[in-house]
Amino acid sequence: MKPDKILLDHGSGGKISHNLTMELILPIFGNNILDPLNDGAIVDAGGSRLAFSTDSYTVDPIFFPDGNIGDLAIHGTVNDIAMCGGVPRYLSLGLILEEGLPMADLETILRSARRAADEAGVMVVTGDTKVVPRGAVDKIFINTSGFGPIPDGIVVGSTRARAGDRVVLSGTLADHGATIMTQREGLTFDADVCSDSAPLNHMVQSVFAACSDVHVLRDPTRGGLGTALNEIAGQSGVGIRIDEDRLPVRPAVAGICELLGFDPLYLANEGKMIAIVPAHEAEAVVAAMRKDRYGKDACIIGEVVADHPGRVVMATRIGGSRIVDMLAGEQLPRIC
Amino acid sequence: MKPDKILLDHGSGGKISHNLTMELILPIFGNNILDPLNDGAIVDAGGSRLAFSTDSYTVDPIFFPDGNIGDLAIHGTVNDIAMCGGVPRYLSLGLILEEGLPMADLETILRSARRAADEAGVMVVTGDTKVVPRGAVDKIFINTSGFGPIPDGIVVGSTRARAGDRVVLSGTLADHGATIMTQREGLTFDADVCSDSAPLNHMVQSVFAACSDVHVLRDPTRGGLGTALNEIAGQSGVGIRIDEDRLPVRPAVAGICELLGFDPLYLANEGKMIAIVPAHEAEAVVAAMRKDRYGKDACIIGEVVADHPGRVVMATRIGGSRIVDMLAGEQLPRIC
Repeated sequence: MKPDKILLDHGSGGKISHNLTMELILPIFGNNILDPLNDGAIVDAGGSRLAFSTDSYTVDPIFFPDGNIGDLAIHGTVNDIAMCGGVPRYLSLGLILEEGLPMADLETILRSARRAADEAGVMVVTGDTKVVPRGAVDKIFINTSGFGPIPDGIVVGSTRARAGDRVVLSGTLADHGATIMTQREGLTFDADVCSDSAPLNHMVQSVFAACSDVHVLRDPTRGGLGTALNEIAGQSGVGIRIDEDRLPVRPAVAGICELLGFDPLYLANEGKMIAIVPAHEAEAVVAAMRKDRYGKDACIIGEVVADHPGRVVMATRIGGSRIVDMLAGEQLPRIC
Repeated sequence: MKPDKILLDHGSGGKISHNLTMELILPIFGNNILDPLNDGAIVDAGGSRLAFSTDSYTVDPIFFPDGNIGDLAIHGTVNDIAMCGGVPRYLSLGLILEEGLPMADLETILRSARRAADEAGVMVVTGDTKVVPRGAVDKIFINTSGFGPIPDGIVVGSTRARAGDRVVLSGTLADHGATIMTQREGLTFDADVCSDSAPLNHMVQSVFAACSDVHVLRDPTRGGLGTALNEIAGQSGVGIRIDEDRLPVRPAVAGICELLGFDPLYLANEGKMIAIVPAHEAEAVVAAMRKDRYGKDACIIGEVVADHPGRVVMATRIGGSRIVDMLAGEQLPRIC
């Protein structure tokens, strides 16, 4: 039975989000640009292609180790544009502020956003500020939207994975999700657990320079790697096989996940990307990623197969294999 | 003394909003595209110009006579792009939903948004849905961002008003503001008080067809006509003189304003535009607006003068004159 009210699960980025999109939003707004459901839209502007994306940020807490809602909001949209093959250029910044928000917090958040924009090489060119009465929003929500040109010859998309391709991951899993989780639970650890929130657009350019035929780019944010790979497998009509042994997870993050019962495969990343590329170019892509400051732990984690189309299967550490489904419920609301 | 917390006034669209923008946001993000503070940004994309704009909608109630937050969100961004001289084409839709929002309400809102997009001739090409726990947002907030090309030869902007120009208004004032106010207060009237929320982009094209040298376009939303004219006077370094006698206000709206103590000059409009044009083309602009279904009450309301630069002065009905300042406080939070 379909729920008659919005549930937290509808925002998980996982299966129930996917259903809301497929059953309500697409039937109403569907068009040939929206339908592919990539991280952003690819639109025509005077004969050249632009990548256009939007995201609202509602993360709680608004300040967390190695980031805050301000830089997160810039990184997120920069990365979505980059995952479409676009060179992010212009961003908008829409602020929704709760009456009573300390001005100093707002200033810190905006300064972080500016630094993030500078690092990514994008400009905030338009904006909007709304203030709502106490209790109508929790502290601050930010929307960023933006666009940038897609260079000629670049064609990436989640329908383009082909059997034989390799799946390259740019670094450790679940850092952002585990960080927000520990903050939310009031846990503190000696261990170094901090958000991976980062701009990936420069790394994407290095990947394009190293590989002439990148098939798919995706940043596994809400819903994590597991959900992102499922979407790609479904949209490309292929199977994906990954090796648990090869998945990079920081020991501290792995420990937290075990302690709290979360699976790092489904926790959000905010500075990691998946590239699906022809096998013979995979090592070059890994090498290109490793040269970037945000790609030092890049590695090949699996491959695209003709078997089990639409499914992701993981070879486990103990020698078995298990199906990696999309995230079914909500692991953690307000992760981004 | 500067406030150390965000106040409702900071979102009014009036003087205190303006201060927040000038004293905090511009010093952090300032750049040559953002600085002009038009309704949207004008950016370069492969040699052609695009108008790019964003707005978040937090209106309360979410359903009101003649509209809801869904069509309002489409109209608002369509109009901001049109006020930059752009032809709105692609929109994004970012939803922030409260856990427990009735699915039927969401569907009604999205269907209205789709109808509004169709009427305006724009496509929703990308989106994002976040769900936050009960109490973290009030029902539903929507961000729309979007862009479209600016045809060659079109140059409008709030610095371009010149002494001698006429100020043309496309219709009655304060309809949206008065409607939200009566809903909020739980007042019901026999009289026909309903939102003017409407797309203005087709009317803008008619204005361009009728007038070869449009100087300024602006939709007087938050902060109303009074605030919009002050911004133009300040940015163009000119005075503006308007006649109270000529300002079109529906009798029912005027009555509500008197009853509740609001000034229609500062109440929000969501389907009205100001055009500042050379005197000899003003009548043609009025005629062009009147042919549009949303411009039947268009008229000339005043002129641009060399006297009192930066100030707006109104000749009152009783023969005096008064300075029309920017909105100082918050008339009504969550008007849009």
